[in-house]
Amino acid sequence: MNLDEYKDFALELQSLCREIIHQKLSKDLDIQTKADKSFVTILDQEIEKCLRQQIQKRYPSHGIIGEEFGELNSDAEFVWTLDPVDGTEELVYGVPLWGTIIALLRNRKPVLGLIDHAALDVCVVGTKGGGVFCNGNLVQQLSPLSESPRCYLASRHQFARSVDEGELFEDATRLFPNVRIYCACYAFTSIICGNADIALEANLKIWDLAAAEVLIKEVGGEFVSFAERTLGDGTPVYSAVFGKKAGVERVLGEVGICSSP
Amino acid sequence: MNLDEYKDFALELQSLCREIIHQKLSKDLDIQTKADKSFVTILDQEIEKCLRQQIQKRYPSHGIIGEEFGELNSDAEFVWTLDPVDGTEELVYGVPLWGTIIALLRNRKPVLGLIDHAALDVCVVGTKGGGVFCNGNLVQQLSPLSESPRCYLASRHQFARSVDEGELFEDATRLFPNVRIYCACYAFTSIICGNADIALEANLKIWDLAAAEVLIKEVGGEFVSFAERTLGDGTPVYSAVFGKKAGVERVLGEVGICSSP
Repeated sequence: MNLDEYKDFALELQSLCREIIHQKLSKDLDIQTKADKSFVTILDQEIEKCLRQQIQKRYPSHGIIGEEFGELNSDAEFVWTLDPVDGTEELVYGVPLWGTIIALLRNRKPVLGLIDHAALDVCVVGTKGGGVFCNGNLVQQLSPLSESPRCYLASRHQFARSVDEGELFEDATRLFPNVRIYCACYAFTSIICGNADIALEANLKIWDLAAAEVLIKEVGGEFVSFAERTLGDGTPVYSAVFGKKAGVERVLGEVGICSSP
Repeated sequence: MNLDEYKDFALELQSLCREIIHQKLSKDLDIQTKADKSFVTILDQEIEKCLRQQIQKRYPSHGIIGEEFGELNSDAEFVWTLDPVDGTEELVYGVPLWGTIIALLRNRKPVLGLIDHAALDVCVVGTKGGGVFCNGNLVQQLSPLSESPRCYLASRHQFARSVDEGELFEDATRLFPNVRIYCACYAFTSIICGNADIALEANLKIWDLAAAEVLIKEVGGEFVSFAERTLGDGTPVYSAVFGKKAGVERVLGEVGICSSP
């Protein structure tokens, strides 16, 4: 299967995203609050609209699952998942760690991932079996777990959004007291590029985790999703622990993680 | 008192810091671990050396208190406090939120503060009574507390470094579940620029907090330090809650904060 063609296309999509971001970022973001009380801005919407148009034009038989505008032909062999802005709160509050996440699923399994941090000028992209590249440079396989592991975590709020997993948050902060809380896409990129050892995120949707799963595994890391649940509108959500294998095993062994039923 | 002269000098110091950072950042940072297990790099050391030389040359009667090279004439009327890199862990792990903190104390009270985030190209500087400027633009007075306050916190590790205040960390994550954990200087800048509402930091030294205290008060915010303690080497450390007045009052009222004896 020629995944390189899709990787080139994903990078074309990333260029278009950057153009929109550069046009809109300094203007009024028209911040609105969604039903789940999270923010959405004109940037989330414009980016996803653009990506959907491009995908439908280039690959009319492919499906799409996007955060803002839902599913289209999602039973197709190839399905693109789109999170136009992961970390919209960070975007709104001027923290430059937010990013755009694009993945390609084949038969429901991720085979390509792209995470682009426009405000940091950092883009990671990779395919199953084809390696991962950060700004064009091949990313090395992950090194062994460091003695004082660097751990990233979702906020307590994320752990309590669908089912209350607040205890999991607290267990994790006791196991790794020197934890940081950023946003999911920045945790993904940090793990992929070897800048963090372990991360634990909650309430992820398919458009959050698909790219991370393929990219992290491709650099020799582990990605374990657990506690799958279905929201009222039918959307499945997951918690996930990912990073260096020895770190993920340690979390799975020591923190009170309840597996999917 | 002509604080403008000192502000201009502080901005000269900031330019010199940026030069060192641009020279050294892409090279080997020679990362070492200090006695308290925190990191120090060649950047911390080179910046502080440069700042001390410049201060001694321009204001030989002034004192200096620096994170890396200690105290010099610290009973003087004017004393400069220097934190060459706040967030050295962030620097080491490629997270661009770290910064350089410079303050001027007069009779032990801060009258000038500068926080420079070289990797973000963001610098805030201000003086008591003279306003605060971010990249040259006057910073507005803080707006009222938002309905869903944005809160920044130190890691659990910071809360347990000298005396175990882990419960304070947990109380704060329950009161503000949507909390983020960055590094202290980024929390300061976010509060000053109106991008966050409340922050709670622990184990701060004078070179961490002096700039923040004057800058946050100058934009109409509140800065309350509490739980002063003295480390084995005689260095006083503080916890602090700061941000919008109504938010600080809420934290002081609801979270189990033990005041200084």
